[in-house]
Amino acid sequence: MATINAPKEVSFQQDAEVLRKACKGWGTDEKAIISVLGHRDAAQRKQIRLAYEELYQEDLIKRLESELSGDFEKAMYRWILDPADRDAVLANVAIRKLSPDHHVIVEIACTRSPEELLAVRKAYQARYKRSLEEDVAAHSKGDTRMARPNRSFYLLVALVTAFRYDGEEINTRLANSEAKILHEAIQDKKFNHEEVIRILTTRSKMQLMATFNRYRDDHGTSITKHLQGDSDDKFLAVLRTAVRCLNDPKKYFEKVLRSSIRRMGTDEDALTRVIVTRAEKDLKDIKELYHKRNSVPLDQAVAKDTSGDYKALLLTLLGKED
Amino acid sequence: MATINAPKEVSFQQDAEVLRKACKGWGTDEKAIISVLGHRDAAQRKQIRLAYEELYQEDLIKRLESELSGDFEKAMYRWILDPADRDAVLANVAIRKLSPDHHVIVEIACTRSPEELLAVRKAYQARYKRSLEEDVAAHSKGDTRMARPNRSFYLLVALVTAFRYDGEEINTRLANSEAKILHEAIQDKKFNHEEVIRILTTRSKMQLMATFNRYRDDHGTSITKHLQGDSDDKFLAVLRTAVRCLNDPKKYFEKVLRSSIRRMGTDEDALTRVIVTRAEKDLKDIKELYHKRNSVPLDQAVAKDTSGDYKALLLTLLGKED
Repeated sequence: MATINAPKEVSFQQDAEVLRKACKGWGTDEKAIISVLGHRDAAQRKQIRLAYEELYQEDLIKRLESELSGDFEKAMYRWILDPADRDAVLANVAIRKLSPDHHVIVEIACTRSPEELLAVRKAYQARYKRSLEEDVAAHSKGDTRMARPNRSFYLLVALVTAFRYDGEEINTRLANSEAKILHEAIQDKKFNHEEVIRILTTRSKMQLMATFNRYRDDHGTSITKHLQGDSDDKFLAVLRTAVRCLNDPKKYFEKVLRSSIRRMGTDEDALTRVIVTRAEKDLKDIKELYHKRNSVPLDQAVAKDTSGDYKALLLTLLGKED
Repeated sequence: MATINAPKEVSFQQDAEVLRKACKGWGTDEKAIISVLGHRDAAQRKQIRLAYEELYQEDLIKRLESELSGDFEKAMYRWILDPADRDAVLANVAIRKLSPDHHVIVEIACTRSPEELLAVRKAYQARYKRSLEEDVAAHSKGDTRMARPNRSFYLLVALVTAFRYDGEEINTRLANSEAKILHEAIQDKKFNHEEVIRILTTRSKMQLMATFNRYRDDHGTSITKHLQGDSDDKFLAVLRTAVRCLNDPKKYFEKVLRSSIRRMGTDEDALTRVIVTRAEKDLKDIKELYHKRNSVPLDQAVAKDTSGDYKALLLTLLGKED
């Protein structure tokens, strides 16, 4: 379930006017901006952008970029974008890093629905005039792609280009045989075996869940646990992230939040990313998981680690009433 | 340009009535069936199916399957389907062969537009409740996928899952550097080098054409020529088909037609496939290429090699006036 509180009936023109007023003149009224945009869903934010453009012949996003700064600007920029377009931006930022952040790519590829991932690929092309897989493939050069064993390239591209079957059907026999294949490869430390890549990148999520369950039933331990190991092995790390995202996305996101807050110096990029991308989806469930796992409510942990307008926006997205 | 002659104004109900009459009673009026369906485009055929279903509470395709037989039935069945659905069927038939016909998979993956390929993947899932890449990956087992060097799997899956950028932009510098990478790999006979797979499966078609042109300019010979070699090397054969389909689909289709007709015993599957899938697209251009290359008009060659209703349908699709 979502965390944001968005009223059903909204006057987009009125919202645009409030935003214009908040941006005009000396200083910016960040509170007013948060109180509007922090309480609007994706469809509403889009309408507000259109209304703003029509009223003031100005791109609202560009205006906000020039008015805001720091983590707050980054978070607001990500929040205001359409979800698919936002994912395209997140992926591009991750790819262009000196050492590309493959976990963000895997997260987008494995936690979005097949149709959502497709929309991200379309948005990526519209924005960057190249395909997502093209950039993932070209930019993982010199990193995990060329390392021995060098199959991160295949794994990443196959995850990003997958358009998995989205039905509920499960083939139990297949789950059994593929749980066995996975176990054998993992036992032999052949993590990059092409059968492992094939299974994880082409099977439907429902089928994979059945396979992972079977794995746990047969061996008493989850496949994720068995994928712990050499922390320098980048391929293994990417593989583990993929399995976690496919198997239990909410649990995965809880852990990303936990790590981002726990660190010496909060990892704002990760914190922002999870809150912004999940606020309209399942952040309520992730919040519950977080509370249970850490014995601290998520909003409290976020409030402790952040400050100013950035904090105010995150807490609003987490469902705090004004 | 297309070859079929379809009138702009069609009464779908009247067409359905003619088809019903042709199927009813003793014997079937194949000529009537060809004269209707052989002159209707994909959108019209769909409307005729809907009209037929509504009028007679019967699936036209099923009815035709029970009335017709042999190569004619097969060709008519393929022709009447929506293009994306037809490609899904062609791919599935190719995959399920004892020795999967990877060239058909490559042909569909590399000669269709990115949006068309996507539609094929959706149609495949709707029909078979699995993803196309899932079946391609699972069924190439024991064949090229497991052979050494065993990267056909990656090549095939990456070709099938590609959603290439479809814009016109070309990066000349990139074309130069990637032409060089391809040439080095080919010179070293490292056809399955991951850089080769990366370039061919992720770059846009316009970009690849620039790269192939550059390759030819630098080395005086086309990349296709350089990919000739060991005819037992299945990976190399698949790679060569991919390059030919990406570089010049019409020339590729001309050659498929030429080989299908030249053989002792015509290869009806290939002949039907090319004529049926290209009749509404570019079969007119392919016909011209064929005539030029073989000094015989394509319709004449087809007429010589085929017979009966099958021949009549193919010639109609090739643009013959009744």
